[in-house]
Amino acid sequence: MERLAVIDMGSNSWRLVVYGYDPGTPWWSLTDEIREAVRVGEGMGEENELQPGPMDRAVHTAAVFAAFCKASGVEDVRALATSAIRDARNREELLNQIKERTSLDVRVISGEDEARYGYLAIANSTTLEDGAGIELGGGSLQLTRMVGRRLEESASLPLGSVRMSERFLPEEKASGKQMKALRAHVTEELEGCDWWEGERLAGIGGTIRNLAAAAQKRVDFPDVDVGGFELTREALEDLVEELASKPASKRGDIKGIKPDRADVILGGSLVVAAAMDCGDFDALEVSEAGLREGVFFEHALDGDPPLFDDVRRQSVKNLAHRFNTNPEHVQHVGKLSLEIFDGLAVAGLHDLGDEERELLWAACVLHDIGTAIDYDDHHRHSYYLILHAGLPGYTPRELVLIGLIARYHRKGDPDASDLADLERKGDKQRLEVLCGVIRLAEQLERSRDQSVAAVEIDVNDGRVRLAPKADGRGGDTSVAIWSARRNADLLADAIGKEVEVAG
Amino acid sequence: MERLAVIDMGSNSWRLVVYGYDPGTPWWSLTDEIREAVRVGEGMGEENELQPGPMDRAVHTAAVFAAFCKASGVEDVRALATSAIRDARNREELLNQIKERTSLDVRVISGEDEARYGYLAIANSTTLEDGAGIELGGGSLQLTRMVGRRLEESASLPLGSVRMSERFLPEEKASGKQMKALRAHVTEELEGCDWWEGERLAGIGGTIRNLAAAAQKRVDFPDVDVGGFELTREALEDLVEELASKPASKRGDIKGIKPDRADVILGGSLVVAAAMDCGDFDALEVSEAGLREGVFFEHALDGDPPLFDDVRRQSVKNLAHRFNTNPEHVQHVGKLSLEIFDGLAVAGLHDLGDEERELLWAACVLHDIGTAIDYDDHHRHSYYLILHAGLPGYTPRELVLIGLIARYHRKGDPDASDLADLERKGDKQRLEVLCGVIRLAEQLERSRDQSVAAVEIDVNDGRVRLAPKADGRGGDTSVAIWSARRNADLLADAIGKEVEVAG
Repeated sequence: MERLAVIDMGSNSWRLVVYGYDPGTPWWSLTDEIREAVRVGEGMGEENELQPGPMDRAVHTAAVFAAFCKASGVEDVRALATSAIRDARNREELLNQIKERTSLDVRVISGEDEARYGYLAIANSTTLEDGAGIELGGGSLQLTRMVGRRLEESASLPLGSVRMSERFLPEEKASGKQMKALRAHVTEELEGCDWWEGERLAGIGGTIRNLAAAAQKRVDFPDVDVGGFELTREALEDLVEELASKPASKRGDIKGIKPDRADVILGGSLVVAAAMDCGDFDALEVSEAGLREGVFFEHALDGDPPLFDDVRRQSVKNLAHRFNTNPEHVQHVGKLSLEIFDGLAVAGLHDLGDEERELLWAACVLHDIGTAIDYDDHHRHSYYLILHAGLPGYTPRELVLIGLIARYHRKGDPDASDLADLERKGDKQRLEVLCGVIRLAEQLERSRDQSVAAVEIDVNDGRVRLAPKADGRGGDTSVAIWSARRNADLLADAIGKEVEVAG
Repeated sequence: MERLAVIDMGSNSWRLVVYGYDPGTPWWSLTDEIREAVRVGEGMGEENELQPGPMDRAVHTAAVFAAFCKASGVEDVRALATSAIRDARNREELLNQIKERTSLDVRVISGEDEARYGYLAIANSTTLEDGAGIELGGGSLQLTRMVGRRLEESASLPLGSVRMSERFLPEEKASGKQMKALRAHVTEELEGCDWWEGERLAGIGGTIRNLAAAAQKRVDFPDVDVGGFELTREALEDLVEELASKPASKRGDIKGIKPDRADVILGGSLVVAAAMDCGDFDALEVSEAGLREGVFFEHALDGDPPLFDDVRRQSVKNLAHRFNTNPEHVQHVGKLSLEIFDGLAVAGLHDLGDEERELLWAACVLHDIGTAIDYDDHHRHSYYLILHAGLPGYTPRELVLIGLIARYHRKGDPDASDLADLERKGDKQRLEVLCGVIRLAEQLERSRDQSVAAVEIDVNDGRVRLAPKADGRGGDTSVAIWSARRNADLLADAIGKEVEVAG
C-alpha cells in the first residue's frame, strides 16, 4: 500500500488528505484527513496583499500538516497553493515562512491547473460524459466543459466566495442592491465564456457541498453524504433567500452550512446562482471530490487523461475491496442474480429495466461488506456502509435502493419506507422482485464455491422453474438446491407465481 | 493471518464459524459464519434414536459446511458434536454418512468437555472472576462454577431445550401442570450440584441469547447485541408467562425470539428459570460467546487455562486493531485524557471515579475507528462501530457511554438522550466532562506525533491551567497548544471554570 498526501492550501479552507493505493490496481481509499478553516485570503482586498493574521494561521496550519506527515511516515507529500496565494503580491513572504518553519515544498498552481484538477475530480466521481463543471473556491471560480470525458474548455476567474463576499457583502446584513451587484459582476466576468452551457452540470468545492447539504436536509431521507445530490436552481434560489434573510453571523445556524463558512456562504451561493443563470443550467449534480482528488488521480491512475473506465463499477468494486469481501462469491451472486433477473424479464414476469439491473448488480457485489463489522446482522451493517462509506457516481435514491437490496438479501420483508421522500410509485414491488432475486441467488451460492455455475429459467403452466447448472468440476449442487428451495418465497410472492428449483 | 473453522453440531442449531487470528498476538476476529437450524435431536425420544428426517438435514448441512471450508481454503477445521449425537444409540450411522459424504472428521465431545468450552467462553468474554456459568443447548444443560477465573466444578445434564420441550410440552398449548412438571424435573436433576450458587451468574447459548434479546427489546435503548445484558429473574418470569400464553407456533412472533426456536423456547426458558431458582440467582449476565469460542480460545491462546489477562482491555484493543487505528495516536490521546481527568479530580473539579475513567480510556482507544468507514463524520461512524462491532465485557449502558464519548470527541454538544431508558441522574454532566477531556486531549495530539508528551494541571484563582510538556525530542508543541486553545470551551463549560492552555 503506497501513500500520497495532498495538501490543498485553498483561499478559504486548507485540507491535508492522505490516500492509500495499490499501484497498478484500481484500489484506493482516503485514509486520513485534517481540515482547517485558515481563510488565508481574508482581507486581501484590491491590493492583493496577504494579511498578518491569516498568514500566521497559515504557517501554524502548515506546521500541523507537516508534523502530521512526518509522524505518520507519509513521504510523498504534494502541497498546492491556489488562488489567494497565487494572486498575492506578497506570496513569497508566506512561502518563505512556511519553508523556514516546515519541510513543505509548496507548489503554486495556475488557474488552468486548478481547473484541470477539478475536471479530473468530476470525471472520476460522476457519470458526466458531456457537460460542464463548476468549482467554487474561496479565491476563484473554475468553469470547465468536457466532451466525451475529455476537457475541452476551462476558465479560472477571480470570483471566489471570500473575495466576492468581502467586496460586495461586507456587512452583517446584505441588501438586495449589493446582491444584485454581485450577480451582475459575475455575469459580466462570464461574458467571455461562450462555451459555458451544456445538458448537465457537475459541481465541486466546499461552498457547493454546503449548499447541497442545506438543500438535502430539507428533504426527508436517510442522512447520506451529498455526493450525487441534485441541487436545482429553484432550491438554490430558496437558499439564497433564506441566507439573505439572516445576518452573516447567523447563517451558520442553517443545517448543512459549516459555521466557519457563515460569512461567505451567501456570497458563494450568489456566484453559483449567477453562473448557473449564465449557462442556463437547471440543476447541478454535486460531487464530494475536489482538487485534492484530481491531484491524486493524476498521480495514481494510468491513461491520458487519467480516468476510471466506469465510475460506478469502480466505486462498487473499490468499496467491496475496502471491506475485504470474498470477490469470487459476491461476483458470482451477481452473475446468478442477473441470470434470474433476465430470465424473468424475458418471460414478462417483471417490467424492470437496465437501471434496476445495474442496482441489483451493485447490491450483489456489496451484500456482504457488513461482515467487516459483525457477522450477526451483517445485512444491516452492509446497508449502513453502502449509505455512508462512499459510492461516487450514484444519486442518494440509488444509494438507498442498493442499500435496501443488500439489506434484504437475507431476513425480513423488503421495506421501501427508508426511501421516504425519494420513494416512487412501484418501489415496494420493485424491491420485492430485486430482493427476491438476490436472496435466491445467494442460496444457490450458499457454499460459496461456485458449484452452481449458472441458472436457467423456464416458465411453464404459470410456474417458474429454476434449473441450476453444475460447474462441471464435480461440485455438489445438492446443497445449493436444498438451500434455494427454502428461500424462494419472497420471489414467488413478488412475481405472483410458484417458483420451483429443479434438482 | 491464520484461520480456524469450528463446526458446532449442536442438538438444535449447527454453526460453522471461521476465526482469523495472528498467532502469538491477541488479535482475532470472527470472519465468517453459517448457522442452520438442523434440529438433529428432534424426536429422539426415550430410545435416544436419531430420526431419518433430522439425519438427512444433518448430512446436508455437513455437506454445506464442508464445501464452504474447501471453497474458502480453510484447512484447519474442528467439527464437534454435542449432546444429541453423543447420546444417540445410532450415532455411528450418522457419523458414517457424514464421513462418506464429506471430508469432515467429527469429534464427539463429552459433557465435561462441553462444560469446559463453555467456561472458557464465559471467562474470556465477561468480567466474571468468581461465579457460576450456565449454558443451555438443545440436548443438554451445562453448569459450571469458577473461582479466580479457574474452573472448579462442572456438570452436564440431559436437560436441553429440545429434549425438555418434547418430553414435557409436546402440544401447541402448554398447561400449568406440564410447566410445573418440567421445572420440578430440572430441580430434581440439579439436586446433586450442591456447589451451584454464587454472587454472579453468566449465561451462554442460543436459548439464553434469544430470551435476553426479547427482554432487551422491552427496554428502550439503542439496538445493540445482547452481550453484557443482565437478564433478571423477574424479566425471565415475565417472558415465561408471555410465552406460555401463546401456542408454540406463535412464540416466534415475540421480538428477539428466532422463529426456528419458537417450539422449544418455552421449554428452554423454564429450564433456565428453574436452574436460577435452584442456585438462588437474581440475574444472569449474557455473553454472546459460545462453545465455538471456547474451542477457538483453547487453540489460539497461551496459558493454562487459556485466558485473556483482562477481557475489557483486550476487547477494546482488539476492536481498534480490527479497524486499523493508528495505535500510537489513540493510546496517547488516552494517556493525555487520563492525565487531565486525574488532574481535575485531584483539584475536586469533578467527582467521577474509576468507572468513568475506564470508559474514557476505552473511548480514547476507539475514537478514530470510524475513519475505516469514512473520514467525514468519522465520529458518528465510531459510535456505530462501538455499538455494533462487538466489545465483550461491557454492559449495554457502558457500550453506549463509550460510544457517546467517542462520538463527541469532535463536533457537537454531548447528548445523553441516546441512553434512553439507560440514562441515570448526572449523565449529561458526566458526558460533558468526559467529552470535554477527550476533545482537549485530541487537540494536544493534533499532529499525531506525541510531541506533547504529558500534560500537567494547575488550578489557581479558580482558573484551570493545562501545561503541555514537550517530548524532549525537539517536537514542536506550538501546534498542539494553538489547537487546544480553540477547543477548551466544552471542558470549561462542563467544570464551570476557565481553562487556559499554557504556551
